[in-house]
Amino acid sequence: MRLKLTLAYDGAGFRGWQSQPGGGSVQDVLQEAMTRLAGGKKVSVQGSGRTDAGVHAVGQVAHADVPAIRGNPRFWQHALNAVLPPNVRVMACRRVPDDFHARYSATGKTYDYFLWTGPVLPPHQAGRCWHVREIDVSALRRAAKILAGSHDFAAFAANRGTPVGDTRRHLRRIVVSAHGPLVRIRFEGDGFLYKMVRMLVAAMVRVAQGKGTLSDLRARLAGRGAVSPRAVAPAEGLYLVSVRYGKTPQSG
Amino acid sequence: MRLKLTLAYDGAGFRGWQSQPGGGSVQDVLQEAMTRLAGGKKVSVQGSGRTDAGVHAVGQVAHADVPAIRGNPRFWQHALNAVLPPNVRVMACRRVPDDFHARYSATGKTYDYFLWTGPVLPPHQAGRCWHVREIDVSALRRAAKILAGSHDFAAFAANRGTPVGDTRRHLRRIVVSAHGPLVRIRFEGDGFLYKMVRMLVAAMVRVAQGKGTLSDLRARLAGRGAVSPRAVAPAEGLYLVSVRYGKTPQSG
Repeated sequence: MRLKLTLAYDGAGFRGWQSQPGGGSVQDVLQEAMTRLAGGKKVSVQGSGRTDAGVHAVGQVAHADVPAIRGNPRFWQHALNAVLPPNVRVMACRRVPDDFHARYSATGKTYDYFLWTGPVLPPHQAGRCWHVREIDVSALRRAAKILAGSHDFAAFAANRGTPVGDTRRHLRRIVVSAHGPLVRIRFEGDGFLYKMVRMLVAAMVRVAQGKGTLSDLRARLAGRGAVSPRAVAPAEGLYLVSVRYGKTPQSG
Repeated sequence: MRLKLTLAYDGAGFRGWQSQPGGGSVQDVLQEAMTRLAGGKKVSVQGSGRTDAGVHAVGQVAHADVPAIRGNPRFWQHALNAVLPPNVRVMACRRVPDDFHARYSATGKTYDYFLWTGPVLPPHQAGRCWHVREIDVSALRRAAKILAGSHDFAAFAANRGTPVGDTRRHLRRIVVSAHGPLVRIRFEGDGFLYKMVRMLVAAMVRVAQGKGTLSDLRARLAGRGAVSPRAVAPAEGLYLVSVRYGKTPQSG
């Protein structure tokens, strides 16, 4: 039977999502645990997409085919949480039709990026946000307004060495919210290019620190102007919040 | 000159506050860093009180005498944060009169204890709260009402091997607040006995899980009844929030 797993992990302890030679990725750790629980029958786990080393997840989604005889989805959730390390958890587990595919059935994703804007980064935020000082939150909001919508985001994508194809994406919403010195930037979109969120955040922070202007941002989005600095915000501030399946809701 | 340091630390990485043979405590790490910055002249750091291994702080207070010639309090804060590991931070630093004493001048403390009451403990909460299931938050509040006020808390103190003396304490407030599955219990008091907060939390949770009654709690507080289970809640849920100096405010 095919299981849909909703996963949370602390990115600090893993070599990213994607299986690596020598192990140590979230996918490796999950596949090892599921293979063990399947009595040695090799289980493959397919995620909705990669997250880089250091990137966190509170709602990554993956699917896996497991022998039904071993137990129901509830058994799998409990057994996995019993054998996995505490830095990765199965938050939900349910049976899905065999044509459900964590990656190809996905119709949208939500990411959060956290900034700490106070003078000192508290120890409980270390590894969990980007420490940036002297930031203008209203400028972040103005930058968000420019970037939201349907655009060709080629200027906000890292080259992964493979042809990217169409670089047009629809960013339904970018919402900036401040809770004291902690600032959250939430990105809701139908899909994201490689390192796109981290490149958008770096560009937004540049504007919010007065190092770049909104016109620079507009020009870069339009593919005009001088070669822009292609800075990438640190992995540790990024969280994959959720993956959407089924119909895309109306733009908010 | 005497400095008052306001400190935050992630308890997971330390062998408690108190200096240990072989080092590894917060006090050891601070003393080593300050001695180094003082050019090798041994600096002692005196905290407001101990925190056990695993216990966190967002507002521990300590004092230390440093050579004034090395720089002002701002220098010390920045220099310390540059050499200390990211799991301990100097959140504030200011000069205080020589008769200020972090421990003996303290007139009150506030502690938070965090419970996670959802079915699965998210990886970002691991080591930062106590995972308890099926809890009645309104029963926690009723238990808090019984425990707040002036009482002899002898039944909620661990024996440290030394005579305790007077075990009467004034708990000004115990406030229970729930943010989804995360429950915070805040204790404000003029002073606390050894392991008192963790023993109070264990007893409150017992009631909130239906394993004990409010009358059991009243009897234990009054020193009556059978020998009660002296359970201690895990260190990892406890946070020293702040230390009060100067006049005690009116009860709220």
